[in-house]
Amino acid sequence: MNILITNDDGIFAEGIQTLASTLADSGHNLVVVAPDRERSASGHAITITSPLRIKRMDVVQGVDCYQINGTPADCVKLGIDELVEIQPDLILSGINHGPNLGLDVLYSGTVSAAIEGWMMGMDSIAVSLALEGEGNFLSAADFIDQFLGRGILNQFSDRVLLNINVPDLKPKKMTGTAITDTSYMQYDDFYQKRRDPMGNDYYWLDGDIVDNFEEGSDIWAIHNNQISISPLKIDLINDSHKQLLQKIIIDE
Amino acid sequence: MNILITNDDGIFAEGIQTLASTLADSGHNLVVVAPDRERSASGHAITITSPLRIKRMDVVQGVDCYQINGTPADCVKLGIDELVEIQPDLILSGINHGPNLGLDVLYSGTVSAAIEGWMMGMDSIAVSLALEGEGNFLSAADFIDQFLGRGILNQFSDRVLLNINVPDLKPKKMTGTAITDTSYMQYDDFYQKRRDPMGNDYYWLDGDIVDNFEEGSDIWAIHNNQISISPLKIDLINDSHKQLLQKIIIDE
Repeated sequence: MNILITNDDGIFAEGIQTLASTLADSGHNLVVVAPDRERSASGHAITITSPLRIKRMDVVQGVDCYQINGTPADCVKLGIDELVEIQPDLILSGINHGPNLGLDVLYSGTVSAAIEGWMMGMDSIAVSLALEGEGNFLSAADFIDQFLGRGILNQFSDRVLLNINVPDLKPKKMTGTAITDTSYMQYDDFYQKRRDPMGNDYYWLDGDIVDNFEEGSDIWAIHNNQISISPLKIDLINDSHKQLLQKIIIDE
Repeated sequence: MNILITNDDGIFAEGIQTLASTLADSGHNLVVVAPDRERSASGHAITITSPLRIKRMDVVQGVDCYQINGTPADCVKLGIDELVEIQPDLILSGINHGPNLGLDVLYSGTVSAAIEGWMMGMDSIAVSLALEGEGNFLSAADFIDQFLGRGILNQFSDRVLLNINVPDLKPKKMTGTAITDTSYMQYDDFYQKRRDPMGNDYYWLDGDIVDNFEEGSDIWAIHNNQISISPLKIDLINDSHKQLLQKIIIDE
């Protein structure tokens, strides 16, 4: 397959390099276009007020790699516009260093890059390793390699947007694969208030992972040491609210 | 109503100040919590790798105003956590300097702040002025003031997330209000390639607004000089793809 790979941890991250090496070894035709530095929690930001620059990098043997001084979504947009000759079959974003579960996908640069690819008309997959210290990036890369090798994406009649999370385990210790819903549970976020050496207050986001997640959700799967595959869609239109507003405001 | 107002153009922008002044005059209980500088196209980014600071500002007469060195979503999260005593009835994000139409809402800091408020359990409205040179921020502010005054939000049984765009016209020249769908048409984006004085290439995002928008969409309404109200939802789960993946991967 022709695949554009990006991420939000930057081009030097172990996750993206492991993914690219693994897929190159399997004979896929790759181009890596990734941010020049970490862009975690960058959401679906794009760069419009400053110029973007592309720099060719030599970081994965046998693979064309480029860094851009932008966000993950910038990498997909500019990569497709300037760095590929034909539109890729697939946008792969990852392997993220850490999980992208539940409504956190809305903050995720990794998932946003996949959404950008999907918006531009391509199958797109975000893949994240739910890091817990071991760093089994190769487990996640091998899973993606096998997933693509099975031709699963060809069986869909419309384009696919997947959010895949892999537990940080050796394959033997995983308990299988689950097709999951994105959990709508809220994280229990709060801010730590601290004081700097000059005596000024500052705030740092902290939060607990919810433990009342729904069975069948992405968080539930990872909690049970399963690989989680969540098929996503972008559906913003609230039809029931539309009808009520139409009645209140227009038909009154 | 108790309202937290934010935006993505920064606390000094005419849009947010006009909105706050207008609603304060109508007797609403406001707090303004906005970025310290422009954060357009910041998407749903949140700040996790650097500390946030809050600074009290005196920019709108009679209204508590604070700036934060973060994104619009940061302003909502930290504002709710630290700057209000009771949870507001409403998060208002705007008035944005420029439209937020179609899938551009995914890039929009303005809309993302509203989504953040909605995720935190509050009714939330993003409001944007489709600037065309005149800068009729007062038209947009007055519309929001009247909208809130009619108690429309009380008629919903669940919480509301609205994306409102107002044409840049005097009220007399507007042709009404439309309850619209977010257009799924793609902008025709491309990058301008330029060369800097040192001879290095750089790229700048450019794009044409699509003109084949759907009747009944937000873009169509603004094009026809109507105020566009799009009720949004966050629905990420692709059920039909879930079923197919379940069949291919799990039940095989």
